[in-house]
Amino acid sequence: MINSLTLFVTYIKNFKVLNQVRCASQVLPQFSSEKYKVKRKPFGTIEASDVDYFKTVLSEDRVLTDDNDVLPFNIDWIKNCRGQSKLVLKPKTTQEVSTILKYCNQKRLAVCPQGGNTGLVGGSVPVFDEIVLSFMLMNKIISFDEISGALICEAGCILENLDNYVRERNLIMPLDLGAKGSCHIGGNISTNAGGLRLLRYGNLHGSVLGVEAVKADGTVIDCLKSLKKDNTGYHLKHLFIGSEGTLGLVTKVAIHCPALPKAVSVGFFGVEKFEDILRLYANAKSSLGEILSAFEMADNDSISSTAKNLKLPNPISDYPFYVLLETHGSDEAHDSEKLTRFLEKEMESGLILDGTVTSDPAKMQTIWNLRENIAAAGLVEGYMFKYDVSLPLRNYYSLVPLLRQRLGAKASRVYGYGHVGDGNIHINVIVPKYSPEASSMLEPYIFEEVAKLKGSISAEHGVGFRKPQFIHYSKDANALQLMQQLKQLMDPNGILNPYKVLPEI
Amino acid sequence: MINSLTLFVTYIKNFKVLNQVRCASQVLPQFSSEKYKVKRKPFGTIEASDVDYFKTVLSEDRVLTDDNDVLPFNIDWIKNCRGQSKLVLKPKTTQEVSTILKYCNQKRLAVCPQGGNTGLVGGSVPVFDEIVLSFMLMNKIISFDEISGALICEAGCILENLDNYVRERNLIMPLDLGAKGSCHIGGNISTNAGGLRLLRYGNLHGSVLGVEAVKADGTVIDCLKSLKKDNTGYHLKHLFIGSEGTLGLVTKVAIHCPALPKAVSVGFFGVEKFEDILRLYANAKSSLGEILSAFEMADNDSISSTAKNLKLPNPISDYPFYVLLETHGSDEAHDSEKLTRFLEKEMESGLILDGTVTSDPAKMQTIWNLRENIAAAGLVEGYMFKYDVSLPLRNYYSLVPLLRQRLGAKASRVYGYGHVGDGNIHINVIVPKYSPEASSMLEPYIFEEVAKLKGSISAEHGVGFRKPQFIHYSKDANALQLMQQLKQLMDPNGILNPYKVLPEI
Repeated sequence: MINSLTLFVTYIKNFKVLNQVRCASQVLPQFSSEKYKVKRKPFGTIEASDVDYFKTVLSEDRVLTDDNDVLPFNIDWIKNCRGQSKLVLKPKTTQEVSTILKYCNQKRLAVCPQGGNTGLVGGSVPVFDEIVLSFMLMNKIISFDEISGALICEAGCILENLDNYVRERNLIMPLDLGAKGSCHIGGNISTNAGGLRLLRYGNLHGSVLGVEAVKADGTVIDCLKSLKKDNTGYHLKHLFIGSEGTLGLVTKVAIHCPALPKAVSVGFFGVEKFEDILRLYANAKSSLGEILSAFEMADNDSISSTAKNLKLPNPISDYPFYVLLETHGSDEAHDSEKLTRFLEKEMESGLILDGTVTSDPAKMQTIWNLRENIAAAGLVEGYMFKYDVSLPLRNYYSLVPLLRQRLGAKASRVYGYGHVGDGNIHINVIVPKYSPEASSMLEPYIFEEVAKLKGSISAEHGVGFRKPQFIHYSKDANALQLMQQLKQLMDPNGILNPYKVLPEI
Repeated sequence: MINSLTLFVTYIKNFKVLNQVRCASQVLPQFSSEKYKVKRKPFGTIEASDVDYFKTVLSEDRVLTDDNDVLPFNIDWIKNCRGQSKLVLKPKTTQEVSTILKYCNQKRLAVCPQGGNTGLVGGSVPVFDEIVLSFMLMNKIISFDEISGALICEAGCILENLDNYVRERNLIMPLDLGAKGSCHIGGNISTNAGGLRLLRYGNLHGSVLGVEAVKADGTVIDCLKSLKKDNTGYHLKHLFIGSEGTLGLVTKVAIHCPALPKAVSVGFFGVEKFEDILRLYANAKSSLGEILSAFEMADNDSISSTAKNLKLPNPISDYPFYVLLETHGSDEAHDSEKLTRFLEKEMESGLILDGTVTSDPAKMQTIWNLRENIAAAGLVEGYMFKYDVSLPLRNYYSLVPLLRQRLGAKASRVYGYGHVGDGNIHINVIVPKYSPEASSMLEPYIFEEVAKLKGSISAEHGVGFRKPQFIHYSKDANALQLMQQLKQLMDPNGILNPYKVLPEI
């Protein structure tokens, strides 16, 4: 059955804004199993003797069974999914994770790994009574090499804490997300998190140097090298990057940290039509080259509704499209000269209708706020269907007018914004109220269109619990079969994060 | 049995120099199976009916059986390994590769995939009578998106041809190797080639957008997306990056091409001691930031012997260590200012004793020539044991003095050079003549030391035919077991590139 996709909220640095928007609804969400009509798989059921065993493995305070203690681990942060776990375990070491999994595998007890629980596709919370294995106490930095930039840490380290740590040493983490104050690096890696500056610093498959992971049977796979080059056999770490905890649990991470930029600038431009954004992007890559760190777009609906709904200032006037461009460089004078020259040239060429460039931190934040709150701002207008897709650049914006036409007056607003540099667009469709009719007009239609264009139905959010039934739009039968075979090989009893990623066969 | 490693020659852009060095020996190398005492596995043997079948799949001219035609496909380019294949197939399409593999898998006929045959560990030539499957006719560019930089092409495209193609469109390939005039992109990806500018443009796990590969049973795995972000399930493409054709054969490639730098400069510096190189590297990362594209080192022995043996000019005088630094940027004036400022500052700090900086193409080539011919230059002095290892930066150079002490007068020269930015050092040990005694003093000692330091015994050359027996120094038992399981899953009959990568169990 095809379900409607629920409210996904991305890149909300300003959590306060989101909380304002969300405060109306404080009731507990419905159980995922009921809401999405899922059947429990024949796993073992936790008994008192199991809890007693886990208390011998961990200290008693790290085995949670009280309903109130367990509740937060059952609900995802957008309050869309709710599991029914009765048990949370908080290991402190890889050995403890290994011992727990070995036991669970023998007893066929299902396990749901949980990092910062900031995922948007229900991957980090249980569906039924899976044991929640929380990484929150595995939060130690193990080593940091200031010269090579190799950071080694445990999986439960919070991204922002790591970023603060390396910034004090003149480096930065290679990824940056709205949820960085809560998300864990282990979760980032397990979900192959993308984020705001992938354009510049690359993806995690490139920047992760090594991982240590534990297989379902408790076997520890140690690929925790901190080397940039290591061609000794299969590159096993990639099995754990982006497989959302279904092939093994990441316990330690080695990651490469790039240099802290000495100069940061932001430009915000008004543009006439989408084709001009693509030309501007090509010119920015050429003119700004190595200092370009973000190239974001938003259509008029995105910016005007955000400015209006959240009373945020728009530093330039009304235009059909907007571009937010950021530079990270090592010399402020050089960067400013490049950026000013680019702006002058492109205003003369007519690609930029109006624009502002700033290096003032407060002004840069004002511009970023406008961009980062687009997702939250839509929530006040009605029910939001939200999509996170990748498309080849020439088709990047094509689905927005298509959906506008298809939904007509049924949608109060359809708008698109996202990371042009990564080919990743977020499309929000707002209807006055949820209706199965609107849902069926959108899905699977939008996924079919994405598939026709050779795009991805999940650019960065992952598959999790909410998208396995759509995965075939982006993976063909042979690839899906290989995925199933890998799952069978790595986790034959299927205890790791069940009901997630893989479609039912 | 531990065999001595033979002459590996890396990064030889100037093939003429190498050919001068090699011209003395034109005799055919010994069969690998005899030289390294390998036993044939119980694969099927090619019969006339098999050849007839392949002629129905391919046109007759793409099925080579004449000894003279087949010979070049049996010998690796450093003339160290020699196989005994009787049959070379040259498919033109993925479907042909699939049909061939399906047949071979059913008949248990072993297959050796071959790209440009420029590998340094014997991975690209057969050991016994494996059928050589050459990708040389799969050399079409399929599409190129000038805005996103996504190039899609067949596996047999020669790297330099691709680079020329994208340079005409103001982009470059994200990797650059000495062998680029011969090596195939499919081989680069299958061996996870590193190269000269990994420091700047990252590794192939980061820059490859997608692959199409054929499994041993002929199943085509289509992960040929040209998207930067695609989080829809397991990231299967990484199974084929760096697994050296043992899990599947890469038939098509999608890769991200970065912008062509508008300004290139090279600096060549004399340095007092190795610790100063590390400090200089940290300062270069900070001062030159985003324009740094290569940071190479060589000790005095490397440079002085190269200059002397190959009569190449050294633009500065004699120093204990040398650093070659390169910048790729978008503004010549800015880059030159940054580089000059860096040079002045570090000469004042005393880290640089003397140096030269140039943007003149001929002068830059003179400096690169000196660096790139270090490997070839040693060949004229005697028998060379050559190692390609990664080490944590603080221990980067530590093995060179250790080996000098261990070998004493038995070695005529021990020297180290390599890619500091990647933690990858090449260590050459020259002895007057090969002797088992020298070999046993070096191996496994050097691999043990690398393992102690958590390094990699093969930084970029791979495992191939020559290193499976040493792989346990860099992969623990659990990781090796998982590798074996993956091989069993993907290629249960073991027909793909046998005798390579995986150690005998």
